[in-house]
Amino acid sequence: MNETDFIAALRALPLHPGARGLKDDAAVLDIGSEILVLTHDVLVEGRHYLPSQDMADVAWKLVATNLSDLAAKGARPLGVLLGHMLGGDDARFLAGLDEVLSHYGVTLLGGDTVAGDAPRSFGLTAIGAATHTPVPSRAGAQPGDALWVTGTIGAALLGFEALRSGTGDPAAYTRPLARLPEGETLAPHVSAMMDVSDGLLLDAFRMAEASGVSLAIDSAAVPVGEKARSMDCLTWGDDYELLFTLPAETPCPVAATLIGAVEPRGFAPLFVDGEAVANPQGLGYVHR
Amino acid sequence: MNETDFIAALRALPLHPGARGLKDDAAVLDIGSEILVLTHDVLVEGRHYLPSQDMADVAWKLVATNLSDLAAKGARPLGVLLGHMLGGDDARFLAGLDEVLSHYGVTLLGGDTVAGDAPRSFGLTAIGAATHTPVPSRAGAQPGDALWVTGTIGAALLGFEALRSGTGDPAAYTRPLARLPEGETLAPHVSAMMDVSDGLLLDAFRMAEASGVSLAIDSAAVPVGEKARSMDCLTWGDDYELLFTLPAETPCPVAATLIGAVEPRGFAPLFVDGEAVANPQGLGYVHR
Repeated sequence: MNETDFIAALRALPLHPGARGLKDDAAVLDIGSEILVLTHDVLVEGRHYLPSQDMADVAWKLVATNLSDLAAKGARPLGVLLGHMLGGDDARFLAGLDEVLSHYGVTLLGGDTVAGDAPRSFGLTAIGAATHTPVPSRAGAQPGDALWVTGTIGAALLGFEALRSGTGDPAAYTRPLARLPEGETLAPHVSAMMDVSDGLLLDAFRMAEASGVSLAIDSAAVPVGEKARSMDCLTWGDDYELLFTLPAETPCPVAATLIGAVEPRGFAPLFVDGEAVANPQGLGYVHR
Repeated sequence: MNETDFIAALRALPLHPGARGLKDDAAVLDIGSEILVLTHDVLVEGRHYLPSQDMADVAWKLVATNLSDLAAKGARPLGVLLGHMLGGDDARFLAGLDEVLSHYGVTLLGGDTVAGDAPRSFGLTAIGAATHTPVPSRAGAQPGDALWVTGTIGAALLGFEALRSGTGDPAAYTRPLARLPEGETLAPHVSAMMDVSDGLLLDAFRMAEASGVSLAIDSAAVPVGEKARSMDCLTWGDDYELLFTLPAETPCPVAATLIGAVEPRGFAPLFVDGEAVANPQGLGYVHR
């Protein structure tokens, strides 16, 4: 079964009303006294990381990418659970896990360890508490809103190339940062928010689809890692920046760049420099 | 790194105070207004299930074993997150997932799907809300308490043999039940509680160690799947019954069997028919 069919089938199961995004979006679980945000990501060797990579970086990324999903909901992390497949380089994995947990002040709640063979896989569940109600979602963008993004898009691409070539600094790819403080600051103000994990254009496309609007992006305005390769930057994933919309008159409360506007739904969900993008094929990285 | 060393190393990381059991025991997360219970288990093909098994049964077991961890804490499930590796028999997996979620009235909160190769692995996180404070743990058994167990021990062994031979009913192995109602009923009364996932004797040994007591088990009193193979039943895992201690004068509020008593810590954590068991080797299934 391919992933699209599988996810469609999952939607036919007993589904929590807060499970809107299934794999793309963190779950929102209202328990009355508190609103919890939960996310679970799996990294597979050779698919989500290079077998030659330092396992400390893999552990870092596993945690940071899940925390990024919490950031997009304005949630504060409560802890993580790890599904770990034992292997030859567990000491490095543990070192990276220690670094990333210490960096974010997040604790390990539990998990499972299993023996396994290559390709290894690692799962992580992060749980957080929402800091603002309603919890931001990708579905709230309104025509007239401004479209913003934090940080630099395509930095991870350049980091990946540095890693492969052995020259330059791979940190933007190997040690992505979760925008937790920005997410929390933004939560009361945004009309829509998500993290850019699969490429700016693909994720913008998804926000437009979820919100029932069109997003118009001015590519020249996007802060990219390398100007000459702007389109590569816009379609490369792994940046974990926050993409969000604010009412036009709302000043942006964090360091970010205005990259476009929300329009009533036109004949395509996405317009880049005025050109319609009608389907997401080729726009970014489709995770499997 | 072997599992023991890995778990010892995990204990040196930033650890949540509620992460006492790490992989053996569900995490207890006090968020002030509510006490959450979280557990994460991974099943690996060829290690935790036979490659020839119906994937509907694997999905059932993945959910039921995690819910069993919640049952041992007297927690009520709030939802589950799935880490799914796509493969050839996803439709059967989905069918089993539907059945088990519907059976327990539990909803899917989210998760991740990844492409993968054999051996496949599946992770599941279950989150629940504690129904009683203090949340039961395996560490509370007191000398003088009575030792009880629900259900029949070794039923899963006989089910496993039925599955392998193709004769008889494999359900006790393929479709274990989580003792959620019993766990909730017991929570206000027990001094210690855990689920029997790795074999009655091994898990009793662990409860004794965690509580700093000795447990004395009368093997003839244990309700076993097959009398003639009593010792096999006592050391086989996968039964997911609840093992618990009650003050001697407390009547047991659920259907269960009195199988022994808690004693002050003697020279071994476990005594079976008066014989000391000083180390856990060979007592049951050590998960990897």
